[in-house]
Amino acid sequence: MRDTYHEDLDALGGRLVEMTRLARHAIARATTALLDADLSAAQEVISGDEAINLLDDEIERSAFDLMARQQPVAQDLRVIITALHMGGDLERMGDHAVHLAKVARRRHPDSAIPPELRSTVLEMGHQAELLVIKAGEVISNRDADTALELDSDDDRMDKLRRKLLKRILDPSWSHGVEATMDVTLVGRFYERFGDHAVHVADNLVYMVTGEKPKDYEPEA
Amino acid sequence: MRDTYHEDLDALGGRLVEMTRLARHAIARATTALLDADLSAAQEVISGDEAINLLDDEIERSAFDLMARQQPVAQDLRVIITALHMGGDLERMGDHAVHLAKVARRRHPDSAIPPELRSTVLEMGHQAELLVIKAGEVISNRDADTALELDSDDDRMDKLRRKLLKRILDPSWSHGVEATMDVTLVGRFYERFGDHAVHVADNLVYMVTGEKPKDYEPEA
Repeated sequence: MRDTYHEDLDALGGRLVEMTRLARHAIARATTALLDADLSAAQEVISGDEAINLLDDEIERSAFDLMARQQPVAQDLRVIITALHMGGDLERMGDHAVHLAKVARRRHPDSAIPPELRSTVLEMGHQAELLVIKAGEVISNRDADTALELDSDDDRMDKLRRKLLKRILDPSWSHGVEATMDVTLVGRFYERFGDHAVHVADNLVYMVTGEKPKDYEPEA
Repeated sequence: MRDTYHEDLDALGGRLVEMTRLARHAIARATTALLDADLSAAQEVISGDEAINLLDDEIERSAFDLMARQQPVAQDLRVIITALHMGGDLERMGDHAVHLAKVARRRHPDSAIPPELRSTVLEMGHQAELLVIKAGEVISNRDADTALELDSDDDRMDKLRRKLLKRILDPSWSHGVEATMDVTLVGRFYERFGDHAVHVADNLVYMVTGEKPKDYEPEA
């Protein structure tokens, strides 16, 4: 009985890692959709979101089932509760990839990203992938020390977003209202994707250490 | 022992209702901050967010404690898990009020909202209040049937947001890049505030009935 129980607990982690894999694929394809005005990439992200949502539902059902049948305490209970939170954050990361894909779809066959901002958006896409890959690794390895790094990794994303906004607000910006709206939202969606990755990592720290990231001091 | 337990369960509901009260105040003041370029209203929303976050932390601690000490099953477990979700949504509603307040603060002493859009934004603010008030009522009364109404109540918000965007995209729009960005984000933040209120109501339906809103059929 206890063996199945611990297998089920581990399976929660497995599903979370699988969600990071799907969210990474989604954000990569969404970036392609935006930069290449690639409609099939956009559709793939939009229809692929269901698989991420299903994993989140499975985590929720499994967590509920574990709590009802096994009445876990302390560390195990913390694992289950934090898994619920991480599932919720990863599900929303999928949603933000969908929001980006829908911007691309709306502007197809044009690209929503003016040429001068392509490299910044490309970099935001890479940074988003880096964050979600790292989130998957820290879940997989239950590595609280590396999880603490995501907060500063995400500073890079915030910096890129400020770069986008600065460009839009420059007097030389000449791309009109629709591009202004799209780039504003695109910046926001990448930023939120990064924020949720940081939340995932914060929850991993709490899962492993029982402490909130601000209180946890890694050993030297 | 069971009495304290049920008091603690009820206290979760009380904290959620208190969160709706604070979120309502926050969104009302954020709307004032935007429309009247009222810096002190904006600051109030920004500094007041801590109280909402603290309630969410309390719900989380209490839920954890209840699960660890009482090992609830079935309905009680569902109440605790959904309370965690509702706390998370209400916490983010507070965040969206803060985002709006920060737009107002950034543009002070100007208003971020051009005169021709004031009435639409005012209406979005009213609709946001209506949604969060109703969310509080359905939590308070455990009223799944009324909770189902929030989804269509929120359609009104989506319609108002489309009205904002249509105005921005009209060839006669003459308010420049910064106003375009601000109004784009303002529309998004109100929309997200409404979405989270719908999530709260959906979770209330699940809490009370054990069914997802799409599967729950109210009695005639």
